[in-house]
Amino acid sequence: MNAPRRWPLAMLRLHLVTDAALCGPRGVEAVVADAVRGGASCVQLREKHLDTRSFVERARALKALLEPLGVPLIVNDRVDVALAAGADGVHVGQSDMPLEDARRLMPHALIGLSVENAEQVRAAHGLPVDYLGVSPVFATPSKQDTAPALGLDGLRALRALTDLPLIAIGGIDLDNAAQVMAAGADGLAVVRALCAAPNPAEAARTLRQFTDSPAPR
Amino acid sequence: MNAPRRWPLAMLRLHLVTDAALCGPRGVEAVVADAVRGGASCVQLREKHLDTRSFVERARALKALLEPLGVPLIVNDRVDVALAAGADGVHVGQSDMPLEDARRLMPHALIGLSVENAEQVRAAHGLPVDYLGVSPVFATPSKQDTAPALGLDGLRALRALTDLPLIAIGGIDLDNAAQVMAAGADGLAVVRALCAAPNPAEAARTLRQFTDSPAPR
Repeated sequence: MNAPRRWPLAMLRLHLVTDAALCGPRGVEAVVADAVRGGASCVQLREKHLDTRSFVERARALKALLEPLGVPLIVNDRVDVALAAGADGVHVGQSDMPLEDARRLMPHALIGLSVENAEQVRAAHGLPVDYLGVSPVFATPSKQDTAPALGLDGLRALRALTDLPLIAIGGIDLDNAAQVMAAGADGLAVVRALCAAPNPAEAARTLRQFTDSPAPR
Repeated sequence: MNAPRRWPLAMLRLHLVTDAALCGPRGVEAVVADAVRGGASCVQLREKHLDTRSFVERARALKALLEPLGVPLIVNDRVDVALAAGADGVHVGQSDMPLEDARRLMPHALIGLSVENAEQVRAAHGLPVDYLGVSPVFATPSKQDTAPALGLDGLRALRALTDLPLIAIGGIDLDNAAQVMAAGADGLAVVRALCAAPNPAEAARTLRQFTDSPAPR
């Protein structure tokens, strides 16, 4: 098993997780371009309804957009789509492909794993994973099949269990981002706060202020 | 682009395409084992509802069962599952991963492509594909999102267009298998005729008589 390559934490500070419906008529690519211009440091393409062919096409289009900017593209769940499109990584959940298999198929990729509780954080130790996506910090309408919200105290408790980079997700917006970083997150992942923002570049710029100058813990 | 490895036609004669619901309480593995004992020469694992982790587990279990028997395992649609489980190939539809991408990711695999009309058969020429799955020959309750049935005349018409191995699928059973072979199929793929058979081994044995001694065209 190859050891994961070290991805700089700066690349993980602000994940834009795509939601085609929330991007609306502007389209996913336009929102991504805008958000990255404002400071989104990583893009996770999440598509739950596209057929594989369209999913690969969209991933390829985003990769062409992001490659010159040095911003990594991560594909949610689907290692095949990531491989076909030459994406930089994959984000898997607890019922997606086992981490060890994903790492074997993508030895140098940026691989993230969703965790929702202490048991899953402990089980992630020793896995060839680059970051843990901790969710949901707050209740969110973007994803229906989630565990109860952790809250800031829950995030702090998980932070105490691991040195792996923790990327917080779930209901994070401009109003609570500072508190989430102060609770121990290494970075933020947002859906609505960027995909539904009237001005994604400006929203990303504001969020980066919180991720790059976190309040003292 | 690697040229596809030649897979012997004998391996393609009788595809069992799995349907967990039709296999019932016997389970997919038991039906596969039984059908292969009777002469199924190839198994395509089709799962439309399993999460990725369970899909990989099932593919791995089938691979362990089939490997010692020299029977290839093909995974429907999902190249990632095929790669993770070490399956022999993948079967893709027109809206699944593009054939060229699948071939690039699985250079030596057995790769099949679904075709439903003359245009798709013509477009398959020059693709790095090992066989074409022609469907549906007859109306079938096993799959809902299909084109109108081709009938035997439709199959004959597609046969005239290509030298690629044609595997017929859709409503094929013990009563019409001989006619399907006589209309030009190189092999048969069945769901219901094996998964729902009271005795899959016996059903496979009968079907192999039609595939191996086709009536003169």
